[in-house]
Amino acid sequence: MKSSFIRELLKVTSQPDVISFGGGFPAAELFPIERTRAACDKVLKENGSKALQYATTEGYDPLRDWIVEFTAKQGVQVTRENVLLTSGSQQALDLIGRVFINRGDRVLTESPTYLGAIQAWNAYGAVYETIDTDDDGLNIEQLEKVIGHNIKFQYVLPNFQNPMGVSLSLERRKKLVEIANKSSVPLVEDDPYGALRFEGERVPSVAQLDAEYNGCDNGTMSGSVIYTSTFSKILAPGLRIGWVIAPDEVIKKMVQAKQGADLQGSTFDQYVAYELARGDWLDEHIETIRRVYKERRDAMLEAFEEFMPVGTSWTKPKGGLFLWLRLPEGCDTVELFSLALEEKVVYVPGAPFYPNSGPKNTMRLNFSASNPELIREGVRRLGNMAKRSILLMRSSHPSLRTQE
Amino acid sequence: MKSSFIRELLKVTSQPDVISFGGGFPAAELFPIERTRAACDKVLKENGSKALQYATTEGYDPLRDWIVEFTAKQGVQVTRENVLLTSGSQQALDLIGRVFINRGDRVLTESPTYLGAIQAWNAYGAVYETIDTDDDGLNIEQLEKVIGHNIKFQYVLPNFQNPMGVSLSLERRKKLVEIANKSSVPLVEDDPYGALRFEGERVPSVAQLDAEYNGCDNGTMSGSVIYTSTFSKILAPGLRIGWVIAPDEVIKKMVQAKQGADLQGSTFDQYVAYELARGDWLDEHIETIRRVYKERRDAMLEAFEEFMPVGTSWTKPKGGLFLWLRLPEGCDTVELFSLALEEKVVYVPGAPFYPNSGPKNTMRLNFSASNPELIREGVRRLGNMAKRSILLMRSSHPSLRTQE
Repeated sequence: MKSSFIRELLKVTSQPDVISFGGGFPAAELFPIERTRAACDKVLKENGSKALQYATTEGYDPLRDWIVEFTAKQGVQVTRENVLLTSGSQQALDLIGRVFINRGDRVLTESPTYLGAIQAWNAYGAVYETIDTDDDGLNIEQLEKVIGHNIKFQYVLPNFQNPMGVSLSLERRKKLVEIANKSSVPLVEDDPYGALRFEGERVPSVAQLDAEYNGCDNGTMSGSVIYTSTFSKILAPGLRIGWVIAPDEVIKKMVQAKQGADLQGSTFDQYVAYELARGDWLDEHIETIRRVYKERRDAMLEAFEEFMPVGTSWTKPKGGLFLWLRLPEGCDTVELFSLALEEKVVYVPGAPFYPNSGPKNTMRLNFSASNPELIREGVRRLGNMAKRSILLMRSSHPSLRTQE
Repeated sequence: MKSSFIRELLKVTSQPDVISFGGGFPAAELFPIERTRAACDKVLKENGSKALQYATTEGYDPLRDWIVEFTAKQGVQVTRENVLLTSGSQQALDLIGRVFINRGDRVLTESPTYLGAIQAWNAYGAVYETIDTDDDGLNIEQLEKVIGHNIKFQYVLPNFQNPMGVSLSLERRKKLVEIANKSSVPLVEDDPYGALRFEGERVPSVAQLDAEYNGCDNGTMSGSVIYTSTFSKILAPGLRIGWVIAPDEVIKKMVQAKQGADLQGSTFDQYVAYELARGDWLDEHIETIRRVYKERRDAMLEAFEEFMPVGTSWTKPKGGLFLWLRLPEGCDTVELFSLALEEKVVYVPGAPFYPNSGPKNTMRLNFSASNPELIREGVRRLGNMAKRSILLMRSSHPSLRTQE
């Protein structure tokens, strides 16, 4: 079920009367359509024959330079040579797998973690050592116990993690960096949602803390961290532009890997994304996205309070696109999926996000792609589904009734 | 040297006074810039929020349907489910590797063959069984001898092969299909240049002959052939859209592989490419490309007659972008590359195109990216380089003088 569950699910659930919390779609109504049109115009008028031609594997230099500046604003100094443009950050994960993983290699991940990473690395024969994740991110005590055991690299999503929506606390980030440096196990920091914080203060990235730990001037990249992010959540996923930031020698290997994989990304999309990203507009646009997604998250949390039955619980993300809901133990969200379809609401069952195994009573819910009214109605349906689930469970497991 | 030689070389040789026959660039002056601008306009006005959003891994259905029709015109009946859009045909090769190759598996290729295929499949640990290629394509007698020996799949570029520019004769294609069917070894047909024929009649694709061999009505896909092609040479490589046509069950596996690799290609580019491809304009455009490339090939062949010294020889492609030049035996085009740079002309040495090993006196020359005047001047310089090479070789290998 794991490999393509979400994508298959999205196909099933595209009927108009179904409310889907299943995908990871950004709000399409915020896409800068008119600006994209103007950017295409400008690119084609001024640089048409270059923008439609083959180009370097590394990507369009002005866009790489823009990423250098964007990264500097976040406290990490890198150069163009540290930046590789990828076909979404999914490709960054794939190239990391291609460069680092040999069949049977052990990769340390959170549990649950991003399904796409597992999918990418399964292709290279990775085996997973998993660390439980709670409301403050991955459990550092567990990490300390396993880190010495021949781990190829660690994979973390510190900000508004997919699927849970939780963030790694500053204290744990510092500890994580210390452990990574002492153990010399590289850290892959996946940060697609970092810019989409709704509340609370920005927490420094693991890359920044690593640079500081290593005493690098101005937070220059030190070598322990491979950082990846994307334009998919702050601009538009249809342009398929992500990036990796890593030490020169890692980028060189990833460039070679990308040559074999697809030669290069879309030259045209990179030119267009650069036109959209330059100047001040993108900052304002990110502000708008934050505001709208905060409203949607709030609408979902409020509707939970109103509609979800006793015995359910959920995370309260401070940013990003997702939250994580738990039904009472004994419920299986894969089996219950048909019940949700009857109620015309869709979620992603939590089980596939556990690389090895995990509880069956969880689900991932997306709040970015529906407006507050739809969210409220969807959660009402989800509440019905949850109530029916609990009744069903109790009737099939009578022993659980005593817990009432 | 093999892995990224061409790309590295392109960086070195971007000085304006150097004439490059090195790349595989289409003629940028033929790119439909104004039409692309209009297509972007239309797509964003009519379908902006869909074109910038995530979409299916398989690709934009109207474009897949267009490919079904395009393929039918070439005598092979397929359905949408047989078509997967890829990030250039390079990604098609990568996904084929991901689905079929386990470390140590034997892949049968021409020798020389497309460097990018080798680069893609090296990542999966392929080992190559190679077949010599002459002016009529790969040597079928050699093929018959090795085909039984545990070959995972065969890889051929029947039309205007990269790097040699030669085409597989009809007779050999038929024999190849017969052998593939009798041995049950799948055939990968890579056809990026098939539409760019300058002279002679169209030769049926291996996919078409395979369908006919299997007695399929109207040439329905039969299962022995995986066919790949691209918009890079007939529209614009910067859009990064290629495609694979294969039996349903192979496409399903490749879709799963693509999900791990990059989730999907650029939604936006697929919408734009569809707007460009629909209607009659693309046929006219391909006619224009053919006419211009024919002029350029002719210019190169004429200049060879005028400037190349005795002892050199070359292929005479009937289409495509490349031809293959041989210096006298004893010349090493890798070593001689610095001599070419002195003359301010660039080629790609032939050696990296041989998956295992091959002669050192060959080079690949591109004729699509320079106008006839530049081609003439470039070949004049190449002639000087060749003459100097021959003198150098004779002075360092005195025994060769006796052959004069």
